[in-house]
Amino acid sequence: MKPSNETPHVSSPFNEDLNELRTHLLHMGGQVEGQLAAVLKAYQQQEPASLQAIIEGDGPINALEKAIDDECLRIIARRQPTASDLRLVFGITKIVTDLERCGDEIKKIAKALRRLYAASQSPVQGSAALRHMGEAALAMLRQALDALARMDVPQALSVIQADEMLDSEFKGLTRQLITHMLEDPRTITGVIEVMGIARAIERIGDHAKNIAEQLVYIAEGRDIRHRNSAGIQR
Amino acid sequence: MKPSNETPHVSSPFNEDLNELRTHLLHMGGQVEGQLAAVLKAYQQQEPASLQAIIEGDGPINALEKAIDDECLRIIARRQPTASDLRLVFGITKIVTDLERCGDEIKKIAKALRRLYAASQSPVQGSAALRHMGEAALAMLRQALDALARMDVPQALSVIQADEMLDSEFKGLTRQLITHMLEDPRTITGVIEVMGIARAIERIGDHAKNIAEQLVYIAEGRDIRHRNSAGIQR
Repeated sequence: MKPSNETPHVSSPFNEDLNELRTHLLHMGGQVEGQLAAVLKAYQQQEPASLQAIIEGDGPINALEKAIDDECLRIIARRQPTASDLRLVFGITKIVTDLERCGDEIKKIAKALRRLYAASQSPVQGSAALRHMGEAALAMLRQALDALARMDVPQALSVIQADEMLDSEFKGLTRQLITHMLEDPRTITGVIEVMGIARAIERIGDHAKNIAEQLVYIAEGRDIRHRNSAGIQR
Repeated sequence: MKPSNETPHVSSPFNEDLNELRTHLLHMGGQVEGQLAAVLKAYQQQEPASLQAIIEGDGPINALEKAIDDECLRIIARRQPTASDLRLVFGITKIVTDLERCGDEIKKIAKALRRLYAASQSPVQGSAALRHMGEAALAMLRQALDALARMDVPQALSVIQADEMLDSEFKGLTRQLITHMLEDPRTITGVIEVMGIARAIERIGDHAKNIAEQLVYIAEGRDIRHRNSAGIQR
């Protein structure tokens, strides 16, 4: 993230604190992104062996959330930031919650895959659409984190737009899966798991969007939550 | 909420700010609780007429989230709170996010009910279990808000315990609904909606739990997130 323009603290202890905070946030983001890439790979390559490590990988992400929240609180108490610096710290406390909840969704996906593989039901139903949704969500999360590293507002806005696409893909896949169950009720148990995976991916997209919204807030002080993308452009 | 013991600010402007903040938070909580009670009533009494108002009621809740977040930021910038007061403001910014997301889930339930009633499929499948889940989630939310008003840590801990029950009820209902679909595939479309409603209720329970965890953090400075209830008692 670029240093803010409003309150320059060149190489002050305060600036060092903020830089460290940003580094920790981006580290946490990288962990979550890595977990998501791993679970999508486990799905695409039908590779159950890696799922246990992914499930266990959620613990360290939870710990990072607590640590970064603590750090934010210490910075506020010690440095009493104002204006854009305070917005940054405040925005980061919101972003870590979204990252942590991405971690929860990834864990849910890994557990659903494990149940599917244990029942030796490979999740074939809607697999092209599901793979596409997974790739879209991973791209959104990457772009949101990348935008955060560079405080890139236009990129954040494109993440917000991408979420509308992902939501409509989710709806389409749900319809497709229902048709599949109606045509062949023997697939019901497996399809319900696939639907749960699709929903988790859709949520990850929501969290990436939330992160992008916080970025716009940190960078510009505009609170664009709960607006559609047409309203945001205005 | 009782005034904190660590930093008394008897009738100072700071104290007035904090009291106002608490009032706004509890007002927002009351709105969300009212919406949840209304959507459960619409379900129990099979009353589609009220659903539109519930769906529209999500907008004001979103606006309250923004307003309270703004207020928290202003208080930090102006009053530079420390210790337990800072924890309070910080905790409130987390709680409003959970309340706002409860609002989103309630809106989802109202939309699912509207689709069910439009297809004139009354959601009979698993209705006793679903009703029970709804009542349990409403009780959890009420208790969490009530505990927040009185800074009642033991009550917050009982909300956290209740969430484990709700999660297992959700799993039981999911199994029951899958059996139902397998026995009578004509019910699939309706059952999928019911499953979505059950999941939304389960999420509301999660948010009530998150609120209770933040309360413990505000009151005691203990961060009990990501522990099971046995770990919390210790």
